[in-house]
Amino acid sequence: MTITHEEHARPDALRAAIRRGAWTGPTAGLAPGAAQANLVVLPQSDALDFLRFCVHNPQPCPVLEVTEPGSPEPVHTAPGADLRTDLPRYRVYRAGELAGEPGDVIDHWREDLVAFLLGCSFTFERALLAEGLPVRHLEERVNVPMYRTSIACRPSGRFSGPLVVSMRPMRPEQAIRATQVTARFVRAHGAPVHIGDPAAIGIAELERPDYGDPVTVHAGEVPVFWACGVTPQAAAETCRPELMITHAPGHMFVTDEEEIRQTVA
Amino acid sequence: MTITHEEHARPDALRAAIRRGAWTGPTAGLAPGAAQANLVVLPQSDALDFLRFCVHNPQPCPVLEVTEPGSPEPVHTAPGADLRTDLPRYRVYRAGELAGEPGDVIDHWREDLVAFLLGCSFTFERALLAEGLPVRHLEERVNVPMYRTSIACRPSGRFSGPLVVSMRPMRPEQAIRATQVTARFVRAHGAPVHIGDPAAIGIAELERPDYGDPVTVHAGEVPVFWACGVTPQAAAETCRPELMITHAPGHMFVTDEEEIRQTVA
Repeated sequence: MTITHEEHARPDALRAAIRRGAWTGPTAGLAPGAAQANLVVLPQSDALDFLRFCVHNPQPCPVLEVTEPGSPEPVHTAPGADLRTDLPRYRVYRAGELAGEPGDVIDHWREDLVAFLLGCSFTFERALLAEGLPVRHLEERVNVPMYRTSIACRPSGRFSGPLVVSMRPMRPEQAIRATQVTARFVRAHGAPVHIGDPAAIGIAELERPDYGDPVTVHAGEVPVFWACGVTPQAAAETCRPELMITHAPGHMFVTDEEEIRQTVA
Repeated sequence: MTITHEEHARPDALRAAIRRGAWTGPTAGLAPGAAQANLVVLPQSDALDFLRFCVHNPQPCPVLEVTEPGSPEPVHTAPGADLRTDLPRYRVYRAGELAGEPGDVIDHWREDLVAFLLGCSFTFERALLAEGLPVRHLEERVNVPMYRTSIACRPSGRFSGPLVVSMRPMRPEQAIRATQVTARFVRAHGAPVHIGDPAAIGIAELERPDYGDPVTVHAGEVPVFWACGVTPQAAAETCRPELMITHAPGHMFVTDEEEIRQTVA
């Protein structure tokens, strides 16, 4: 699975490569400078409740764009893109059960579907690297580890569920600097939600993430947890909407929006 | 029109005073420390389009809460409050025409109505005062001046319209400090959208605001403009929904949420 330097670097070229099946892996570190986004697609009948769930839980679910019903084009964040084909991998949930992980969702698309793009922590990772802070899953070339927590989201209509978090290990003084750096990214999960004790937020084993891959925690490091856009997938498993399509964890939609724009509302 | 010290100071006591008709004026400066909110009420059939409009225009329309259809209770920001009675004055628009400015909307309420609470710039005024920065409409005991601009909001579904701004005059060095102070309030309009030249954003006469009252601009001061939650009222005039209920400009809903919470997503 190889892509060109230009496809690695530019969001539109990367999306075209993904569309033709040339890249099917996680998107962390790709198209540096472009904001990445979580995808959630639901029938219009569930769309208002879900959007209420998002605005009531802005840390895991910062809304970047919501498409017109039936349209797969995100006209604000990536005009011309197609949300049915431009992500490396999808998850299709039917009545809350994972029904498949296809490479496109052309055959699942319907005229009543509404797509939601939510901010993603991959967006602030370049800012962490620029500060000399470690991003372990990039170092180890794996998907970021993600965990369901014991923290409940605010329910809205039929949607409820646990907060899902991503984790990056670092030394305590690095965690402080990472808090300062990421707090600015208000549209990409912002500051961490927890530092230090996985058990305090209901995580039993760091070595066994619920989504993504485990990463090494070195001596002297603590786990740092950020709210994660996989939270809606946990809500889908809890609330069982008739149909819900999402990105596969770590396999994001890459927008045309500059990541620095995620630092302002 | 007098209220007690406690009613002046505490959001729940203030709402009770408003409910019984003891306070019908603007809310700037009341219940210090409590976040204030713009109100928009629409039929459920318009709710998804309007919420999309809000998330695509987060600077004028930062969403704090959206009620369950039919419920007038904001369970997250002021549990127990009643949005039909707890604002000092309302505006009722029918097909885009202002149909009245009642003191409550009990008679207009329907089971299909959804209420939206949006962040308000009154929330950051105490932070401005704490920095020694002037808030002229508080000094002059009038409503804040608000203007329709030539800046278009991002349209969503049936909703479109111009950005509405509020204005506070100050010296240039004060405007810089005010930018730093308000930029943190990401859920209350954040940093200014313009400093200095009203004509550059389509404002012909500072002395004739489109909403609220004019204020004095002293020699050496420049007008500083912030995105304003009256923007949806301008959209209502443009898009003519069947029914839209809002707060009267400057007559906000006072929540129980600490204003400092508006600095984080």
